[in-house]
Amino acid sequence: MEGSLKPMDAEQLRENAHKMVDFIADYYKSIESFPVLSQVKPGYLRELLPDSAPNQPESLQDVLDDIRQKIIPGVTHWQSPNFFAYYPSNSSTAGFLGEMLSAAFNIVGFSWVTSPAATELEVIVLDWLAKILKLPNQFLSSGRGGGVIQGTASEAVLVVLLAARDKFLRKHGKRSLENLVVYASDQTHSAMQKACQIAGIYPENLRVLKAGYSSNYALIPEVVSEAISNDFSAGLIPFFLCATVGTTSSAAVDPLFELGKICKANDMWLHIDAAYAGSACICPEYRHCIDGVEEADSFGMNAHKWFLTNFDCSVLWVKERSALIQSLSTNPEFLKNKASQENTVVDFKDWQIPLGRRFRSLKLWMVLRLYGLENLQSYIRNHIKLAQQFEELIGYDSRFEVVAPRTFSLVCFRLLPPPNHEDEGYKLNYSLLDAVNSSGELFLSHTVLSGKFVLRMAVGAPLTEERHIKAAWKVLQDKATDLLSGN
Amino acid sequence: MEGSLKPMDAEQLRENAHKMVDFIADYYKSIESFPVLSQVKPGYLRELLPDSAPNQPESLQDVLDDIRQKIIPGVTHWQSPNFFAYYPSNSSTAGFLGEMLSAAFNIVGFSWVTSPAATELEVIVLDWLAKILKLPNQFLSSGRGGGVIQGTASEAVLVVLLAARDKFLRKHGKRSLENLVVYASDQTHSAMQKACQIAGIYPENLRVLKAGYSSNYALIPEVVSEAISNDFSAGLIPFFLCATVGTTSSAAVDPLFELGKICKANDMWLHIDAAYAGSACICPEYRHCIDGVEEADSFGMNAHKWFLTNFDCSVLWVKERSALIQSLSTNPEFLKNKASQENTVVDFKDWQIPLGRRFRSLKLWMVLRLYGLENLQSYIRNHIKLAQQFEELIGYDSRFEVVAPRTFSLVCFRLLPPPNHEDEGYKLNYSLLDAVNSSGELFLSHTVLSGKFVLRMAVGAPLTEERHIKAAWKVLQDKATDLLSGN
Repeated sequence: MEGSLKPMDAEQLRENAHKMVDFIADYYKSIESFPVLSQVKPGYLRELLPDSAPNQPESLQDVLDDIRQKIIPGVTHWQSPNFFAYYPSNSSTAGFLGEMLSAAFNIVGFSWVTSPAATELEVIVLDWLAKILKLPNQFLSSGRGGGVIQGTASEAVLVVLLAARDKFLRKHGKRSLENLVVYASDQTHSAMQKACQIAGIYPENLRVLKAGYSSNYALIPEVVSEAISNDFSAGLIPFFLCATVGTTSSAAVDPLFELGKICKANDMWLHIDAAYAGSACICPEYRHCIDGVEEADSFGMNAHKWFLTNFDCSVLWVKERSALIQSLSTNPEFLKNKASQENTVVDFKDWQIPLGRRFRSLKLWMVLRLYGLENLQSYIRNHIKLAQQFEELIGYDSRFEVVAPRTFSLVCFRLLPPPNHEDEGYKLNYSLLDAVNSSGELFLSHTVLSGKFVLRMAVGAPLTEERHIKAAWKVLQDKATDLLSGN
Repeated sequence: MEGSLKPMDAEQLRENAHKMVDFIADYYKSIESFPVLSQVKPGYLRELLPDSAPNQPESLQDVLDDIRQKIIPGVTHWQSPNFFAYYPSNSSTAGFLGEMLSAAFNIVGFSWVTSPAATELEVIVLDWLAKILKLPNQFLSSGRGGGVIQGTASEAVLVVLLAARDKFLRKHGKRSLENLVVYASDQTHSAMQKACQIAGIYPENLRVLKAGYSSNYALIPEVVSEAISNDFSAGLIPFFLCATVGTTSSAAVDPLFELGKICKANDMWLHIDAAYAGSACICPEYRHCIDGVEEADSFGMNAHKWFLTNFDCSVLWVKERSALIQSLSTNPEFLKNKASQENTVVDFKDWQIPLGRRFRSLKLWMVLRLYGLENLQSYIRNHIKLAQQFEELIGYDSRFEVVAPRTFSLVCFRLLPPPNHEDEGYKLNYSLLDAVNSSGELFLSHTVLSGKFVLRMAVGAPLTEERHIKAAWKVLQDKATDLLSGN
């Protein structure tokens, strides 16, 4: 940046941002040429960068060169069509444009008044999405509920846990914290455990119920009921259950309807975490996976996973927004303003952990408008079809097995150990994963299901096409052949 | 987006992102033409947008037209040179470019392996910034401490509160939660209260100590000592003190050195919240404001406020990273990987509330490199000089008074009520604020100090120049004249 510092000169912005656009478009164009999983060693960057910040400005060209030569080798390319690890993190042109605009306005939207459009667009777009998902009306902003964008599903589960905790503490007294019990399964995301740690729930009062092979890794209502009734008998206070639609390990779907009845009967808060699979429920043929959501107190999905909205954009709906607000509001003098005092507006600061918040609804709005619902449905269906194809490929190779039923776009599979040598399965698949990921040609992650080390093929990157699925399978087969032949 | 859905086609991205760059540069060019504070009424947007998302894609041109006609009127323009409310939220070309690149990579950097460059660049850049601020070596990554980017200062104070809480609960037992006491002043940011709510600290155990006119709104060490000793006598456990450098109301600076000694003597965690004023401490002549930081356990500043790094980027350093990690870590199977298991890397997921995290170090790195330290120092000094000029202008108009001493770029002032009518001061200044903000020509916010309603002129937007300060003062004078003459 030559000359005296004009950090927000419109023409300097224009010139440099055009350069960055080309840099980024070129990155996407060449994305298949990079190892998907970064192959650098810990500490690699320290050796490449100076020990302190420069006193004098450097040129954008120098910085871009460094990004190419020093940063990109350390990037794991989540947008690569050969990224199949964890769950996807979708970028899209629409989402990217929304991020650009949000960064340009650079507002801090804690209260309505700090940018009415930010709050109101969020309310409207979350109503749109609730309607697309056919959520019950109680989750819409017109009643006592509403939607809010959180950064992550971890924050979503935390804020509803806090709302439920405080509701119960108001009823039973602060000292009853030690009696509050949370229910989840051993397939529930670790965010639930972390939320409990933060909220001060006693570790021994988090019931991690077994959800194994027999129930396809879904919670078993009878097991939940029994645990609750035991806890009541022991003088404890069951108050919160987290059900999952699309677990992280195997995309299992908990039986919402039955769990909802149990929660209702026991006056407990039911949260549904559909972080990954919620997106699929925009298709009529998958909507049944969230049947029972009418029984829930809160429901969340990550638009930043499989809905083309750049990270972060985790969408949370609640039936009683007052519960959130009672837990999370503060009202300092320096934030008071007429609109808030008159209670005519939503102040999202009271629905979340942080005070400040970005204008994240822009990107979700742009995704919905620039793509339209029908395209978004096709997008989801295409990934599910690709996962199905991958599953079929596995079926043709008797050395492999599919380990858990596939519902969405995740395939859990493994290389079979030699007959009567189940104990070798763990090491075999660990080695297969390592060989595949070290090749740089694709990136998978793993889980353990019923003691088996399992590879997870999560289809869902925007650039993934059939040819990538076939190539991935070829790499897996080749590495398996190497391993089995002792190479 | 015409044709079949290619949500991440490089050429479509290039074409549309170039359009967005021009849209944004044009926005900055015309930013002074908009009312700074949005003048819309609650619910305005609902009437302008359809009730549901479209089934078919719409064109980018239509969306951009809507942004111009429907969204921008509802935006409060934080980047306007006439924005003087709250504290600033700096955008810059460098920060914006960093946001673009981060959105393009769109990684989810919970663990080192998910993009080694994201973690390593963060560690390096936070060491750079620690050195610029001359923080003690214990805050650098080379020892047992280190820096981490949080979303907001609220999250920063929450994570250190949790680390301290759990350290004390490990020592005194879980049931001692009810005895833990937190200390702050009535000038401390409301984020402290909210963090206590979340962490389950008993509301009656948050000591909000008076910091009034006599101490320039800074904490008084003797008052703190006395409160601590009373609490010990009552069998409580003092464990956490939050000191502020640059309070939200008046930019007061708590006496760090004395508070540090008190915390050390009583084995308490000292957190320093320098969210706003930390940036000024990169200038040698302001560094003394954080003298005493060597006594603290944690120190935070918001690079997204006054350091040209787009929101969000709140920087936190701790002396003992293990305390954070003990409170905030989880280790689910699906995230296990060789690098993490071998303990050779930092996994920032264990230093924060959420699991996922964006590649935020890019923007901070680009700000430091594209501007260089000397330019950043001049940038800070220029705003302080402008605030000084504003303060001088007030001095020439005997109808006004400066209410609290100015240290940085915030001026607290008010219109004097008629002699012997102090009771009219509140309404008078409330009305002045309303008149000024309704004009759309500038945006100020307020606070209350010692019962007086006070206007806050926070200089710090990147585009603000001397002419804006003068024009703002002219509007204030004119509105005051109107008010005093009963118009």
